[in-house]
Amino acid sequence: MPSIKLTYFNGPGRAELIRLIFAQGGVDFTDERIEGKDWPELKSSGRFPFQQIPILEVDGHVYVQSTAIARAAARFSGLAGKTSLEQALADEIVDFLQADLQEKIIKFLFGEKDEDKKAELKKKFVEEEAPKGLGFLQKRLEQAGGEYFTGSLTYADIGFYRFVKFTENILNGEEMATQFPKLAALYDRVANLPNIKKYAEEHKS
Amino acid sequence: MPSIKLTYFNGPGRAELIRLIFAQGGVDFTDERIEGKDWPELKSSGRFPFQQIPILEVDGHVYVQSTAIARAAARFSGLAGKTSLEQALADEIVDFLQADLQEKIIKFLFGEKDEDKKAELKKKFVEEEAPKGLGFLQKRLEQAGGEYFTGSLTYADIGFYRFVKFTENILNGEEMATQFPKLAALYDRVANLPNIKKYAEEHKS
Repeated sequence: MPSIKLTYFNGPGRAELIRLIFAQGGVDFTDERIEGKDWPELKSSGRFPFQQIPILEVDGHVYVQSTAIARAAARFSGLAGKTSLEQALADEIVDFLQADLQEKIIKFLFGEKDEDKKAELKKKFVEEEAPKGLGFLQKRLEQAGGEYFTGSLTYADIGFYRFVKFTENILNGEEMATQFPKLAALYDRVANLPNIKKYAEEHKS
Repeated sequence: MPSIKLTYFNGPGRAELIRLIFAQGGVDFTDERIEGKDWPELKSSGRFPFQQIPILEVDGHVYVQSTAIARAAARFSGLAGKTSLEQALADEIVDFLQADLQEKIIKFLFGEKDEDKKAELKKKFVEEEAPKGLGFLQKRLEQAGGEYFTGSLTYADIGFYRFVKFTENILNGEEMATQFPKLAALYDRVANLPNIKKYAEEHKS
């Protein structure tokens, strides 16, 4: 196996999906975590091609951009999808979760200073955007047989598990489980994979 | 070859990179273009899994999310990258162009109603964000030998060509070419690929 090192802040953020993919795939990697206070200096050190983290270093090559890294990690872990069609379906789910759901949360949670505006955007997300998006996802899951988004386990299912964890302070889990029982079952299915379970026990953050 | 149909509005937007990838790959596809006025009704017809376009239909399977489709199109066209490393590098460039540059433009161009705020965001993009991002891209290109982002032609190079076209009313091409001569040469290299040239002549929009 190649020598693999992931570098990110000491928190889940944009690296957690990558860590979970490696954990599920049983791929050994160095989980380098840097402190926020050290970032401004490190940023300009020349080690980070786009002055961004996460980065993934594999045998001297540096991979950048969290979703591109997650996909590369999925290939290393056998979780990218077995066929071109499965790959496209998995990519679609991950991109949808990121661009259409998570980025909206990041926008109101971290991007909006005005408290009233923040509350308004949050309400819109919780009451309209999230249920609509989850409805689409549940339909996609059903179309693939109901067990995993592409029929068999890929990084898309782990991405969904991560999405639920990410939103646990924003969306009401019980309500979601009632409204979207097949997605709730998918979450449980992923959470109970032995490697994911072990990772969750070791990383309570 | 499978039967391929791409559906989007009658304009470049989020479908143009996909069209260019197919054009370069010499892949035949139906370029279905719908009128904006017909979209609200079509949207709820059940044909569009996330009520979004573009969609790509391949032998009855429906692919969604423009970047996931572009990557699938790149695989069909032999332009996704030959190795896992090349794929990750190409994905990184395309994701960076999208998330860190194009989305910023979309935000001020279409998302900002206040004219002063719009002008301010545009100024910041033109004077700070774009030169910084282009600097990163030029360095990435140099690291790969200077000809193409991954060493050989992939959808990332076509993505860059598309980015330049997309920004031609926002960024000053001459200035960019002086500041980033290797990126300017890459643009010319892609623009002069016979299939891309033919496509550009046939689609003046």
